[in-house]
Amino acid sequence: MGLLSVLSLAHKWTSERVQTGDTVIDATAGNGVDTLFLCELAGPKGQVYAFDIQERALHNTRMRLERAQQEGKRLAPVELLLQSHDQMAQAVPEQQHGRVAAVLFNLGYLPDPNADPSLITRPQTTIAALESALALLRPGGLLSIVLYPGHDGGEEEAASVDNWARLLDPQAAQVAEYRMLQKPHAPYLIAIEKRKTNQTKEE
Amino acid sequence: MGLLSVLSLAHKWTSERVQTGDTVIDATAGNGVDTLFLCELAGPKGQVYAFDIQERALHNTRMRLERAQQEGKRLAPVELLLQSHDQMAQAVPEQQHGRVAAVLFNLGYLPDPNADPSLITRPQTTIAALESALALLRPGGLLSIVLYPGHDGGEEEAASVDNWARLLDPQAAQVAEYRMLQKPHAPYLIAIEKRKTNQTKEE
Repeated sequence: MGLLSVLSLAHKWTSERVQTGDTVIDATAGNGVDTLFLCELAGPKGQVYAFDIQERALHNTRMRLERAQQEGKRLAPVELLLQSHDQMAQAVPEQQHGRVAAVLFNLGYLPDPNADPSLITRPQTTIAALESALALLRPGGLLSIVLYPGHDGGEEEAASVDNWARLLDPQAAQVAEYRMLQKPHAPYLIAIEKRKTNQTKEE
Repeated sequence: MGLLSVLSLAHKWTSERVQTGDTVIDATAGNGVDTLFLCELAGPKGQVYAFDIQERALHNTRMRLERAQQEGKRLAPVELLLQSHDQMAQAVPEQQHGRVAAVLFNLGYLPDPNADPSLITRPQTTIAALESALALLRPGGLLSIVLYPGHDGGEEEAASVDNWARLLDPQAAQVAEYRMLQKPHAPYLIAIEKRKTNQTKEE
């Protein structure tokens, strides 16, 4: 069967925690693979928010969602937001704060030949966005982060996310890491589950 | 639901690869938790080999298996072997070489108040045993290693296993690591799946 790839495990753990009707967030729409995945999980009664700072990414995502709908897939309504994911708390309605089932981050650059390769996610906004995402999650909700240490600036970003996750209060969230050991530059997964019992943070 | 613990994930991945009737190995019998788990997975038509260098460990394991049988559990026959796991290739019959479905290693010391705390697994025999285990596995079989960096000598052992696993030929095996990031001294898992397509090693 093969060991699960990093992306497959991120999807598997997310799908175990999302029900139809849930609100979920794709923090990095990119080409829309994760957005489509979340739209299918949340279903027509759910709600998806997808962020990207590149018009091309939102265009690619929109195309992918339309194709899926034409193929008869029943998707959640989605808001495609051309803004940085560190603004997500402002974009998600207040009554959904603390009720989001899952947030996906797929960091790095947009894998599109027409994209600007200098546009990559940066540690400072990434950490701010991760903090927002954790606050938006419901207890038991999952924050899933796929890191790409292989590109320029990727290692630095991975190190700062790693460091941030490592220091999260264990009473507030539980953090696991999954990686393919023979490929130190390959993407790897940090999964963060918000605790159910304690609510240590003001939100 | 909580993120899976390291031990639960080791059992989950093992159970996904073992069928009733299979031959499986517990390289570190300890108190018999993994031996019992493997005996249930392999069932009465399977075969389990369990190794430990401490008589007390095999005694504890025997007690646990007997209790389970008295409770009506249907277990695989098991050979409890008082010898170092680096001798496993000699202990397992030759016709089973290359046909073993799974091997579990749970490294460190025996968690028993009457055990000798100076008896811990050591890098040199551990690596030799891991090499044997990989050779004994069938294609698609799983080698699961739980490492304990928290005790004296544990960090050194974990580092050498990590280093060994990291350098395995990707054509021969695939290696994943799973750990809880907030607990650097907690046990963590290295899972190694033998490749199905290539047989690069003479066995």
